[in-house]
Amino acid sequence: MVKVTVWNENRHENKNENVRAIYPKGIHGAIAEFLDAAGFDTKTATLDEPEHGLTDEVLNETEVLVWWGHLAHHEVSDEIVQKVKSRVLDGMGLIVLHSGHFSKIFKSLMGTSCDLKWREADDKERLWVVDPSHPIADGIGEYIELDREEMYGEHFDIPAPDELIFTSWFEGGEVFRSGCTFKRGNGRIFYFRPGHETYPTYHNKEVQRVITNAVTWAKPADRIRPVYGNSQPLEKITVKS
Amino acid sequence: MVKVTVWNENRHENKNENVRAIYPKGIHGAIAEFLDAAGFDTKTATLDEPEHGLTDEVLNETEVLVWWGHLAHHEVSDEIVQKVKSRVLDGMGLIVLHSGHFSKIFKSLMGTSCDLKWREADDKERLWVVDPSHPIADGIGEYIELDREEMYGEHFDIPAPDELIFTSWFEGGEVFRSGCTFKRGNGRIFYFRPGHETYPTYHNKEVQRVITNAVTWAKPADRIRPVYGNSQPLEKITVKS
Amino acid sequence: MVKVTVWNENRHENKNENVRAIYPKGIHGAIAEFLDAAGFDTKTATLDEPEHGLTDEVLNETEVLVWWGHLAHHEVSDEIVQKVKSRVLDGMGLIVLHSGHFSKIFKSLMGTSCDLKWREADDKERLWVVDPSHPIADGIGEYIELDREEMYGEHFDIPAPDELIFTSWFEGGEVFRSGCTFKRGNGRIFYFRPGHETYPTYHNKEVQRVITNAVTWAKPADRIRPVYGNSQPLEKITVKS
Amino acid sequence: MVKVTVWNENRHENKNENVRAIYPKGIHGAIAEFLDAAGFDTKTATLDEPEHGLTDEVLNETEVLVWWGHLAHHEVSDEIVQKVKSRVLDGMGLIVLHSGHFSKIFKSLMGTSCDLKWREADDKERLWVVDPSHPIADGIGEYIELDREEMYGEHFDIPAPDELIFTSWFEGGEVFRSGCTFKRGNGRIFYFRPGHETYPTYHNKEVQRVITNAVTWAKPADRIRPVYGNSQPLEKITVKS
Repeated sequence: MVKVTVWNENRHENKNENVRAIYPKGIHGAIAEFLDAAGFDTKTATLDEPEHGLTDEVLNETEVLVWWGHLAHHEVSDEIVQKVKSRVLDGMGLIVLHSGHFSKIFKSLMGTSCDLKWREADDKERLWVVDPSHPIADGIGEYIELDREEMYGEHFDIPAPDELIFTSWFEGGEVFRSGCTFKRGNGRIFYFRPGHETYPTYHNKEVQRVITNAVTWAKPADRIRPVYGNSQPLEKITVKS
Repeated sequence: MVKVTVWNENRHENKNENVRAIYPKGIHGAIAEFLDAAGFDTKTATLDEPEHGLTDEVLNETEVLVWWGHLAHHEVSDEIVQKVKSRVLDGMGLIVLHSGHFSKIFKSLMGTSCDLKWREADDKERLWVVDPSHPIADGIGEYIELDREEMYGEHFDIPAPDELIFTSWFEGGEVFRSGCTFKRGNGRIFYFRPGHETYPTYHNKEVQRVITNAVTWAKPADRIRPVYGNSQPLEKITVKS
Repeated sequence: MVKVTVWNENRHENKNENVRAIYPKGIHGAIAEFLDAAGFDTKTATLDEPEHGLTDEVLNETEVLVWWGHLAHHEVSDEIVQKVKSRVLDGMGLIVLHSGHFSKIFKSLMGTSCDLKWREADDKERLWVVDPSHPIADGIGEYIELDREEMYGEHFDIPAPDELIFTSWFEGGEVFRSGCTFKRGNGRIFYFRPGHETYPTYHNKEVQRVITNAVTWAKPADRIRPVYGNSQPLEKITVKS
Repeated sequence: MVKVTVWNENRHENKNENVRAIYPKGIHGAIAEFLDAAGFDTKTATLDEPEHGLTDEVLNETEVLVWWGHLAHHEVSDEIVQKVKSRVLDGMGLIVLHSGHFSKIFKSLMGTSCDLKWREADDKERLWVVDPSHPIADGIGEYIELDREEMYGEHFDIPAPDELIFTSWFEGGEVFRSGCTFKRGNGRIFYFRPGHETYPTYHNKEVQRVITNAVTWAKPADRIRPVYGNSQPLEKITVKS
């Protein structure tokens, strides 16, 4: 049973009645609910808890971390970001959702600006599967259609993803690489675009299926970190004159 | 329970006493044994069976096909190769072992010559894990050491693999990309280098672990092939003057 | 000065007055004209010439081959396809345009069906640059807009490209990986989507710029093919008891 | 004429007579000399100059930056690192040599620890070309052999490179991904392993050829950064009820 922690900054829910109406238990609550139902050992953590709810104990027990943030990326402490990064390199899976593209943890792991075009205009979004072999696309049809979503458009300033699974079409004329995998150290990362707080995206069954598949995919391999540093030869080296 | 078929040309075993001593049940028998013990629903098929043991029924029931061939690549019928290829594009996993690099099916899926350097000289081989995040490397240490193996050296004429998991060091001075994944259509492919017929490589527990991991990894996603061909618009197209 | 051969099946131009009106010198003539103006040593070849205009002499002298075909893929002889493939693996660059996705040479190099969705309905197409670092995107703005084009939609059944440079948005609701690089052997390949015969796409200055950039990019490195086959050790191998 | 700046921390040369004997003009001087002879407009900059010699003016004029550092990575100011990173995302090419794997700029662009195994024991190194199509391998044979070098061994904790051009064999039993390309934003990055300060590696003609090829390859495309941020629709969006 994979141990999942769903992290959410949980600010929109507190400030905005419309968001609260869609996600009465918070975005983290909605995500945790379907992950729990899928059979994972699921916990949640939020920004305003001590250490943002990501204590050493929580992080060490977490096999896959799901991340949603937007308004308050700058309030996440650098120390916690460093710990999360270290856990990812150690093997913890990381699923970054929607506006998490601009989180400190994602930018630090990508090494780029992670910037993009955006618009809140009720665009229709259609996420096409461009890698039908991928386990994250298991059970998904040719595309997922979302009647209204925030638009994110290219150029998305990320390294070329290791695997590109979804590409979005937007009504207003843009495209976006909306389902991307990356590997960093021992850890696997999945970025998934949809999930603006004013739309009921995380109640969509196909979106839930993708995130559920991603948790299974991101589960760490049974490996310790490689040994780095000074190293004795495994074979005899000729002494040269 | 993943349904696996282990295919082997099974010629060395019949011709060469030394090979038979190492693999009394054939290379396919040895591989099937540890895959069966790992909990897969495992069958075998060999070149000299009718349709090489790969009838439509067998192929349709196979979720992951393991392939070992060497002497008799040219005896594999083009029709069967075409059926196997079609099944891979449909989603069947394919694990190509050692000299299978020159099989018709592998060359046809790669689109290149798949040629390489080789030498039978009891080289020591050390397969270094270069992607510690990969599930195929689950449970494997920093490297696998094989006291004696055939050497395969670069340049290995394949497309750049989607993922490079192992790189081999050889005593005689060469390197080789020895654990490579590829995706083609709905199917996942893993090429794994070791396994010359005159060495007990498939009795090595770590080699067994890699192949076992690869079967789990290569299991098809629950998806049908995408729809291709002429396609009606999903959105209204403006009539232009 | 890069030596370029522009190959065209040249059938639509002969059958269809509208196509002839757009491309009075044939699609090959139009492409050769702007490549010549860009300073390349440019020749053309067409299907109905002896050996399709691709004699050994022509192929050996060609550094980059541009390929346009549609109606008559099956009329291209397997022997010539094999020679072209061999030249690509030897280092010759290959630029496959539009309906060339279904040519024998492209399918053989890709190892997949190369199938896709399509529609002739005057869709607007917008090709977004998703890799702004790439020399093939040199001088191109954020996107290229084509008022009317044939639609090609995902899933495009190719191996994951080594580099994805353009992604198309279509008015009818689809997306497409429309500018893709692949490396095979010593050769570099670029697939570029636009160019349906009934539209003046190859008169578009940005489309011309992309193809011109691609020729420069695809020019062979100064290298001979690696040596394959049986190989003496470069280091002393211990004799094992 | 590409404008190149060769940056070197220039400390070993000042401290160690042996290094000074090999590189009397410093490592930067040796590299600048062969780049200059290759026809580039080449300048140098070193750690102890004001702003490490990387003023805004210098950076803005630099098309490709070559980086060698080892002892004093921590002395490079975060502000300068940020400026260099910003220039890379803007399109400036970056060539990171040898111990530069642990520089702030490389780690920041990679997002990983960039750690590795190492040993100073006069290992023989043989760098095999694994991508014979790549322009960085232009003019290079099947491998480059260096009689003595520092060993760097896997696991090398980097993201999977966009392209893997060289893989090293070491006498002591290790392998290493020693020639790797990465793209970040508008910029192209090449990491090249050899070049320990106590060996005359940068006097080797093939090593010089690789670095020279890399400068040509890393030259920026003629593009400005994409536009990011809030964006008006390019197509009309349906008002939904």
